[in-house]
Amino acid sequence: MFSHSVGFSTAASLRTEYDRGVNTFSPEGRLFQVEYAIEAIKLGSTAIGLKTKEGVVLAVEKRITSPLLEPSSVEKVMEIDEHIGCAMSGLIADARTLVEHARVETQNHKFSYGEPMTVESTTQALCDLALRFGEGDEESMSRPFGVSLLIAGHDENGPSLYHTDPSGTFWQCNAKAIGSGSEGADSSLQEQYNKDLTLKEAEAIALSILKQVMEEKVTPNNVDIAKVAPTYHLYTPSEVEAVISRL
Amino acid sequence: MFSHSVGFSTAASLRTEYDRGVNTFSPEGRLFQVEYAIEAIKLGSTAIGLKTKEGVVLAVEKRITSPLLEPSSVEKVMEIDEHIGCAMSGLIADARTLVEHARVETQNHKFSYGEPMTVESTTQALCDLALRFGEGDEESMSRPFGVSLLIAGHDENGPSLYHTDPSGTFWQCNAKAIGSGSEGADSSLQEQYNKDLTLKEAEAIALSILKQVMEEKVTPNNVDIAKVAPTYHLYTPSEVEAVISRL
Amino acid sequence: MFSHSVGFSTAASLRTEYDRGVNTFSPEGRLFQVEYAIEAIKLGSTAIGLKTKEGVVLAVEKRITSPLLEPSSVEKVMEIDEHIGCAMSGLIADARTLVEHARVETQNHKFSYGEPMTVESTTQALCDLALRFGEGDEESMSRPFGVSLLIAGHDENGPSLYHTDPSGTFWQCNAKAIGSGSEGADSSLQEQYNKDLTLKEAEAIALSILKQVMEEKVTPNNVDIAKVAPTYHLYTPSEVEAVISRL
Amino acid sequence: MFSHSVGFSTAASLRTEYDRGVNTFSPEGRLFQVEYAIEAIKLGSTAIGLKTKEGVVLAVEKRITSPLLEPSSVEKVMEIDEHIGCAMSGLIADARTLVEHARVETQNHKFSYGEPMTVESTTQALCDLALRFGEGDEESMSRPFGVSLLIAGHDENGPSLYHTDPSGTFWQCNAKAIGSGSEGADSSLQEQYNKDLTLKEAEAIALSILKQVMEEKVTPNNVDIAKVAPTYHLYTPSEVEAVISRL
Amino acid sequence: MFSHSVGFSTAASLRTEYDRGVNTFSPEGRLFQVEYAIEAIKLGSTAIGLKTKEGVVLAVEKRITSPLLEPSSVEKVMEIDEHIGCAMSGLIADARTLVEHARVETQNHKFSYGEPMTVESTTQALCDLALRFGEGDEESMSRPFGVSLLIAGHDENGPSLYHTDPSGTFWQCNAKAIGSGSEGADSSLQEQYNKDLTLKEAEAIALSILKQVMEEKVTPNNVDIAKVAPTYHLYTPSEVEAVISRL
Amino acid sequence: MFSHSVGFSTAASLRTEYDRGVNTFSPEGRLFQVEYAIEAIKLGSTAIGLKTKEGVVLAVEKRITSPLLEPSSVEKVMEIDEHIGCAMSGLIADARTLVEHARVETQNHKFSYGEPMTVESTTQALCDLALRFGEGDEESMSRPFGVSLLIAGHDENGPSLYHTDPSGTFWQCNAKAIGSGSEGADSSLQEQYNKDLTLKEAEAIALSILKQVMEEKVTPNNVDIAKVAPTYHLYTPSEVEAVISRL
Amino acid sequence: MFSHSVGFSTAASLRTEYDRGVNTFSPEGRLFQVEYAIEAIKLGSTAIGLKTKEGVVLAVEKRITSPLLEPSSVEKVMEIDEHIGCAMSGLIADARTLVEHARVETQNHKFSYGEPMTVESTTQALCDLALRFGEGDEESMSRPFGVSLLIAGHDENGPSLYHTDPSGTFWQCNAKAIGSGSEGADSSLQEQYNKDLTLKEAEAIALSILKQVMEEKVTPNNVDIAKVAPTYHLYTPSEVEAVISRL
Repeated sequence: MFSHSVGFSTAASLRTEYDRGVNTFSPEGRLFQVEYAIEAIKLGSTAIGLKTKEGVVLAVEKRITSPLLEPSSVEKVMEIDEHIGCAMSGLIADARTLVEHARVETQNHKFSYGEPMTVESTTQALCDLALRFGEGDEESMSRPFGVSLLIAGHDENGPSLYHTDPSGTFWQCNAKAIGSGSEGADSSLQEQYNKDLTLKEAEAIALSILKQVMEEKVTPNNVDIAKVAPTYHLYTPSEVEAVISRL
Repeated sequence: MFSHSVGFSTAASLRTEYDRGVNTFSPEGRLFQVEYAIEAIKLGSTAIGLKTKEGVVLAVEKRITSPLLEPSSVEKVMEIDEHIGCAMSGLIADARTLVEHARVETQNHKFSYGEPMTVESTTQALCDLALRFGEGDEESMSRPFGVSLLIAGHDENGPSLYHTDPSGTFWQCNAKAIGSGSEGADSSLQEQYNKDLTLKEAEAIALSILKQVMEEKVTPNNVDIAKVAPTYHLYTPSEVEAVISRL
Repeated sequence: MFSHSVGFSTAASLRTEYDRGVNTFSPEGRLFQVEYAIEAIKLGSTAIGLKTKEGVVLAVEKRITSPLLEPSSVEKVMEIDEHIGCAMSGLIADARTLVEHARVETQNHKFSYGEPMTVESTTQALCDLALRFGEGDEESMSRPFGVSLLIAGHDENGPSLYHTDPSGTFWQCNAKAIGSGSEGADSSLQEQYNKDLTLKEAEAIALSILKQVMEEKVTPNNVDIAKVAPTYHLYTPSEVEAVISRL
Repeated sequence: MFSHSVGFSTAASLRTEYDRGVNTFSPEGRLFQVEYAIEAIKLGSTAIGLKTKEGVVLAVEKRITSPLLEPSSVEKVMEIDEHIGCAMSGLIADARTLVEHARVETQNHKFSYGEPMTVESTTQALCDLALRFGEGDEESMSRPFGVSLLIAGHDENGPSLYHTDPSGTFWQCNAKAIGSGSEGADSSLQEQYNKDLTLKEAEAIALSILKQVMEEKVTPNNVDIAKVAPTYHLYTPSEVEAVISRL
Repeated sequence: MFSHSVGFSTAASLRTEYDRGVNTFSPEGRLFQVEYAIEAIKLGSTAIGLKTKEGVVLAVEKRITSPLLEPSSVEKVMEIDEHIGCAMSGLIADARTLVEHARVETQNHKFSYGEPMTVESTTQALCDLALRFGEGDEESMSRPFGVSLLIAGHDENGPSLYHTDPSGTFWQCNAKAIGSGSEGADSSLQEQYNKDLTLKEAEAIALSILKQVMEEKVTPNNVDIAKVAPTYHLYTPSEVEAVISRL
Repeated sequence: MFSHSVGFSTAASLRTEYDRGVNTFSPEGRLFQVEYAIEAIKLGSTAIGLKTKEGVVLAVEKRITSPLLEPSSVEKVMEIDEHIGCAMSGLIADARTLVEHARVETQNHKFSYGEPMTVESTTQALCDLALRFGEGDEESMSRPFGVSLLIAGHDENGPSLYHTDPSGTFWQCNAKAIGSGSEGADSSLQEQYNKDLTLKEAEAIALSILKQVMEEKVTPNNVDIAKVAPTYHLYTPSEVEAVISRL
Repeated sequence: MFSHSVGFSTAASLRTEYDRGVNTFSPEGRLFQVEYAIEAIKLGSTAIGLKTKEGVVLAVEKRITSPLLEPSSVEKVMEIDEHIGCAMSGLIADARTLVEHARVETQNHKFSYGEPMTVESTTQALCDLALRFGEGDEESMSRPFGVSLLIAGHDENGPSLYHTDPSGTFWQCNAKAIGSGSEGADSSLQEQYNKDLTLKEAEAIALSILKQVMEEKVTPNNVDIAKVAPTYHLYTPSEVEAVISRL
């Protein structure tokens, strides 16, 4: 038992060495700070995105820790530009920084080129900022951004859904869940998703899956729904209520 | 017992590794410096905020450690702008820096746009500064700000109450307590709060809850009350006395 | 005994971790460097301040370690502006930097606004500098200032007395003692102070309390007395002698 | 057993010392951070390049971790300029930074000199950036780039294939595999490669070797093929399907 | 015995923690780097200063470690300005930096104001530089200056003698010894000093005390004498010989 | 056995302390990072240089790790200017940086002075860059350059051969070997070298010694030969073949 | 034995703590990096300087590690200006940086003032650079210069000889030896030196002492002799041979 705890101490100290340099490789070629930031997301509330031909649906769990909290002030879905919105899981203050950065980028693009920025370029701009953590830049952070985003948009290529993580990597998806309930939600999405879903069906699927992974009853107070079809729209409480009643 | 203390040593050293980088993730995805700063607030004096349709009430405990201290110089409630005030708990010198920053922001906004800054924008500006600790900026700190604020304001959207913490996150609330007595005070608030309270009723509730969590008798010397309805007003000792007598 | 010393080693190493980052929180939400700087003041000579309606009196112990030292060159009371003076305890070289900063601030204020800086603004300016230790600014220090000040002044609000500490916090007081004898001196002040003291009575109280906490006989060589009433005046040896003879 | 685990602890701590300085030599003259970055590539997907007289073929494995991922958004082959493309293995976000840098360099070269940049100069420019990790430059990273590239191009010297690694070293090759299956793939390449292969034969060899090292069935969804002959072309799904059917 | 050596190890590691931050407080409120610099002075050669009404005398021990060393090149007494000189003990290269700084300050003062800088202002300027070690300024050092000075001067206030130490603190004295023999020399000074000494008597006292603490015979080769009365003068070997013969 | 492994741990930790500061002395006056960089060269391929009256010959081993590698792309001999070339052993990417620096220096010199830079000045410029590692300069590296060079040139002083190492030191030689086989090769050079060798004889000696230290058969694929006589010339495969056939 | 090795571990770790801060005091008031740099010189070749009325002689040992090394390229004596030269022991690359700095200083002085820089000012300029190691200046090093110099010169004060060390301290000497054989050589110098030596006698003494401390036969290949009388002159091999034959 004694030698065991020494062994543990060794392993522990080994791992912690690599954490010091925020952005260094471990002997196995891993970047621990990025992996730890991903852990922060596993603690976050669940968010789900589904792409249909008619547009993209985002549905998020809102953790209302006190009845005295104003539900509408817990924002887990945000507009980036008229044609782009995003859902988030992880550290909300970090997400706000990324979203603010994306808003400036899309505004600048529209001003410079007279046309909206594509969803992929916007996602790329977000990830460029995320990738450069620990570099001492003006805008970058000293640690990875502890947040994952589902970016929903609509541009000349039609609707699209992107998933980003703290490493600055992004993937285009048909459907994706992030946050503490993502594992179960992703399985359900694979079972229920098909490319011919209507937006209305997608709303119902997103909310029913969210319902499964949440510990409490779904109400307009503890979930938010938004769509980009083809412009961003955050559902009003009564619109959310309508989706709930359809389940 | 021996192996136990070695085990403790290991755990301790594990945790302390992450403290060194002020702003790095632990393996579980946590930011310890932020959590430790939150501990500083748990040591602070209690402050309470309640939002009513008529305006927002702030009530704070003042710890007068010596009879020779000038009670009016222990400021735990401060004006930010004509239409915004805040109560604080934690490190007072840190709070002063945040409040000073917010005052400059609201002045600049009024000067540039000819209208007062909204309460949410002011809160956001405060939190942006709080979030960027450890980034080596001109204005930011090398550690998190060890302070929590209750920001009371009144703008085109009517009265509002915000709660901020050292991570740079903020929430809009109907009522909220911070500081060493916040746990008990929050429970009492949930029991007694309803949206139709008058400002007068809110004053009484705030003070009666403060009374429960304070160790000594409530007097105009050891509490401060302020309201934003619709402008900031700090109660005079006799106004405080009047509320006390109503309890 | 063995496991005990290991335990001690662990505790020690735990604490020392937090010292490295000059300005970081411990798990309990404490800033150790500030607390250690406060320890430096507990090693310092005692200083006492009393506010009366006629003005403020400052009395300080001077440690004359050798008969060949020039007593008048051991300055523990200094003028900041015509209407403000201060007594200090702790590291004298640190105090000189703060006083020099305050002198520049009051001169600039007088030059810019054509009127003297208030005592509170001056104190605030001193504390802003003290708060920003470890921030790498031009003017700030890499560690907390190891000094506590009693700032006596007289402005449009009449006489006032402020107490500052290394954390950059300040309090307004009627009477206050700092330094190695502060604990006993503060008790005596609470017993003997009342708001209707004359300046003459305050001089005598300050000196008699100083006498209690000093190890040697009080002489014009080993104490300094100053008043702000309404302008700063450092007592001459014979003026000090006169107060001594009144005890 | 006890002394053994202490021995292990020692060895471990020895190695980790050199990791701290991102860019320092170990006593044996090794740069561990570069070696660890190379480990990151061994975890990556496999990529293969073959040079023929008619042009260069690149074939890459795409790991589609979920059926809901958009295969075309997993880009492991990218165009740098009209006459240069590259395949990558390792951290995709790092690769994107290098490719973006190379794109700017080739554009600048074309603009300044009115002719395309040679493949070797482009490779050199990429490696110069990779070499300068840890130097605190504007553009460089604080750690090695965790990515290996196969750069295929065609210029006045005809077709060419370059292999780069995280140390900033590059080699010109006739054929080369990188990523988790590189060891087996390289052996197969040595057996099957000859300088007189047609482009068509090279396509088939690349894909058949990729098939051996991949755990699942090869489909247009999980591999990408590109050629530079003499301009960059990414195969459409049906073109990939055609190559598969030829195997 | 075992637990004892562990205890020692602990104490040692505790102390060394505080050394790392050059300028941080220990838990007891001490600045170790300053204390260690003071140790450097205890290893230095002895220097003595005496103030008389006619002027100030400085006498220093010169350690001539080899008969092939040029005695006149071992400078332990230096002129700062016409009316100010200083004796030093500790690291000579550090002293030269301070003296050079003081020379520039006095020259600038004379140029700007048309009159010589006072001795106190000059001492203050020296100490300001000494205090700011570890601050990363252009002129300041990364460690404390390892030198103590006796500054002798003559200005509108008559003759004066100052003593500075590595903390940037200074004291005005009638007589003072520094360096390895300072303890014994200070006792002798207290016995023999009185304010009515003539300069001639002061020369003899200084040299006779130096003789007591030096291990070898006093000769014009191994001591230097200087006076400021009212201008700086370094005694010639024959003038030194004359004082020796008077003992 | 236990105490032994503790002893080893101690020694190990001692040594590693000095590695942290890239550029600090060990207690024995050694610079470990430079010594470790020299180890990197001992792992490198062998290179040999010989000076004759007719010019200088350089011969290098090329490690062709795979038959699919393009031999001509493994460059271990490079031209610096028309009249200067160099052979290298160690980290090739580092060598390229040094060579690129030397090329710019020689071009600038020719442009400014209208005449070629001397071989010694060129070598000096290379070594100045190598010496300044760890200084945070624009151009310098954060670690020593892990490469040794043999610089062959011809200027107004006739042919010359210089040897440089990672410390920034250089020596002029008649003949010299570097890299993993240098020890044996240097002995052979001392036996076979004389000042009256013809260039043709020098070619044969260089290649025959290289043959001894290489593990495989010498072919035009795995060695490079170059001469400066008086201008730089890299041998074609058939010229290398001709030398091989003369052995 | 166990407690002993722990004790050793403790002592070792104690010492190494102070090495980390390149320029910090140990508890005994020592600067270890300077002391370690001095160790580097004890490993260096021996150099000797002697001052006579006719001028100064410098003689140095050259370690010719291989018969293929060009003896004239091992420069241990260098010209600084027409009237100043120096001999060195320690790290040659460091010495070159100091000498280059001194050459620029003397050139600038001559250009600005129209007269040669004095030998003392030149030495002081060299030492100012040496003293500022670890300060992050443009020109200064991050560690002490690992070199000792004997500076021989001739100016308006006649011939002079200075000795500098890594701490930035300098001494004027009549004769001095540095390097690995300095201890024995210094004793011999004390026995044989007198102020009335002719330059010719000094040459012979320097070389005969060098001969004693060198392990091999003295030849024009392994020693260099230079004089400043009144201008710098490096002896030709035949001039050295002539001195050898006089021994």
